[in-house]
Amino acid sequence: MDLLGQSLRWPIVGAPMAGGASTPDLAAAVSDAGGLGFLAGGYLSAEALDAQIAELRRLTDAPFGVNLFLPQRTEVDRAAVDAYVDSLRAEAETLGVETVARWDDDACPDKLEVLLSHPVPIVSFTFGCPSPETVRRLQRAGSRVVVTITTPSEAKLAVAAGADALSAQGIEAGGHQGTFDDDVDPDTGWGLLALLAALRTEVAIPVIAAGGIMTGSDVAAVMIAGAVAAQLGTALLRCPESGASDVHKSALVDPIFTGTAITRAFSGRRARGLVNDFMRRHRQAPSAYPQINNATRAIRRGSVARGDPHGTNLWAGQGFRLAQDRPAAEVVAAVGADFETRWSSGGR
Amino acid sequence: MDLLGQSLRWPIVGAPMAGGASTPDLAAAVSDAGGLGFLAGGYLSAEALDAQIAELRRLTDAPFGVNLFLPQRTEVDRAAVDAYVDSLRAEAETLGVETVARWDDDACPDKLEVLLSHPVPIVSFTFGCPSPETVRRLQRAGSRVVVTITTPSEAKLAVAAGADALSAQGIEAGGHQGTFDDDVDPDTGWGLLALLAALRTEVAIPVIAAGGIMTGSDVAAVMIAGAVAAQLGTALLRCPESGASDVHKSALVDPIFTGTAITRAFSGRRARGLVNDFMRRHRQAPSAYPQINNATRAIRRGSVARGDPHGTNLWAGQGFRLAQDRPAAEVVAAVGADFETRWSSGGR
Repeated sequence: MDLLGQSLRWPIVGAPMAGGASTPDLAAAVSDAGGLGFLAGGYLSAEALDAQIAELRRLTDAPFGVNLFLPQRTEVDRAAVDAYVDSLRAEAETLGVETVARWDDDACPDKLEVLLSHPVPIVSFTFGCPSPETVRRLQRAGSRVVVTITTPSEAKLAVAAGADALSAQGIEAGGHQGTFDDDVDPDTGWGLLALLAALRTEVAIPVIAAGGIMTGSDVAAVMIAGAVAAQLGTALLRCPESGASDVHKSALVDPIFTGTAITRAFSGRRARGLVNDFMRRHRQAPSAYPQINNATRAIRRGSVARGDPHGTNLWAGQGFRLAQDRPAAEVVAAVGADFETRWSSGGR
Repeated sequence: MDLLGQSLRWPIVGAPMAGGASTPDLAAAVSDAGGLGFLAGGYLSAEALDAQIAELRRLTDAPFGVNLFLPQRTEVDRAAVDAYVDSLRAEAETLGVETVARWDDDACPDKLEVLLSHPVPIVSFTFGCPSPETVRRLQRAGSRVVVTITTPSEAKLAVAAGADALSAQGIEAGGHQGTFDDDVDPDTGWGLLALLAALRTEVAIPVIAAGGIMTGSDVAAVMIAGAVAAQLGTALLRCPESGASDVHKSALVDPIFTGTAITRAFSGRRARGLVNDFMRRHRQAPSAYPQINNATRAIRRGSVARGDPHGTNLWAGQGFRLAQDRPAAEVVAAVGADFETRWSSGGR
């Protein structure tokens, strides 16, 4: 199949999972297996991203993508942020770490320059819509541009900005919701299937489906619903090539974790993870990204260092129970073959 | 195809839509078109349900189902209910109506007796799990029993109670969420596709998929994901056989209504509808069903009588934009034929 000018064996995209899970090894394994691997540029310095791209190119000649987080310019409720940081004091003191709620731009402008001077096949964006100028510059440099959207309205903005394709993320997805504006009513979030149906009638560019996809049946279902490819994130988290912590990998199969929820507790932005004690203790985090993400970082790292799954973000999509500890190439091949069987046999 | 012992042309179920939309005419049209029509027993007296069943049997020999709401026994926060009812005062005074927050059992025991003495092919339940004894009594009377569920845990309870099938409802669905316990974290709600995937591995009884389904592609997608049939609700709301008010029908195509959200504002139970002024004014309704449903009833009716879409519940699923004003038989036939094309051609 063709995806954005790239010839792929399977309509499968490896989700960019910022914060450690995505690695050049994982992206290379997905691309070499006939999917489209992704590097997660989020939280990396420009130099680190450059080095990861070089490493990935060393590992494979196959096409791949790079994802960037767009900086958040929204006003935050400073008093609410301060109160929230205060509420973290017990955890911070136990671990002996600092909690500083500062804003940053995630070095996005510098990383964009890296991608413009050393173009990659596909660049995707999360947490907003790049300007038409940014989209055009990347396209002129030879990249195709994908924008993560969670609603039909966001999809139209991305199309208007000149995006080549959309990554449509349902509420089922693990990790951060890519909503342009985090300060939304949670009860307006779209399920993936209804979102794909709306996009069928409202936009004409290709749509990659993301959220809860774990098996070939899921891939076939979203393709029937109009997607050109499906994105696997949580399905790859337990692979040996994934850089997710052992604490995170173990939690995905630990029976004490029975479900997921969307929370702002860890980052100040809505994201889905396994329900753990930190989430239960901190239900009312304000919308303030990346301030709260920065404030909780040392607590999250300290918790992982202690092997404690209850003090860190355990991002997971709703299908997390099916995540397997096996090489990414095997996951992609198994999901791809399962998809092909479902897809070619239809209802017969 | 066979659905619960009934031979159907299409794997399509007409959703029971309590409160007026479901009528014997609508159920008969769906059943005669080769789907499975449903009567909504919710809010009806036992006598009215009996009369609707008789009317439906007069209209068609085809199989059909009847849905009942199970009474809610949960404790409510009386002060919060009182405060909420106080907040309705302006609307109530404008319309010159009363707001009384009383509990009732929706005459469920009496309606159950109607169904036991005059058995129907299929009985479904919403808002909880019937007791194993109730399930057995209905089955002994010759009915198959379906339980509406919104999570894998609820599904397991329904299986344990002896249900013949599940109606799996994603967060995309219009109207009330059928969660057993309304007092849940909204951020734990399941998208339909992920819910179906979880049910594939966790339960062995047939699953009917509900939520956001408007087209044959949607039906094919949920069938690929493991459902045996798909439920159309919002897709039938604008049909001439639907008893939805003209205010409701018009709102579904009125461009001033741009989206849906889940709210407790109208009933004290989470339900999805078009976002209107009433929902915006009353964001913080407590979980108290049917108390709040009873308290707002006269306001909702008064608003409809005045032709005002901003004071009443405008239930709608996320795919509402595709609801068409055409006979239900045509909707079912079109969705069925579209499904068949998608299903038999697969990816080729």
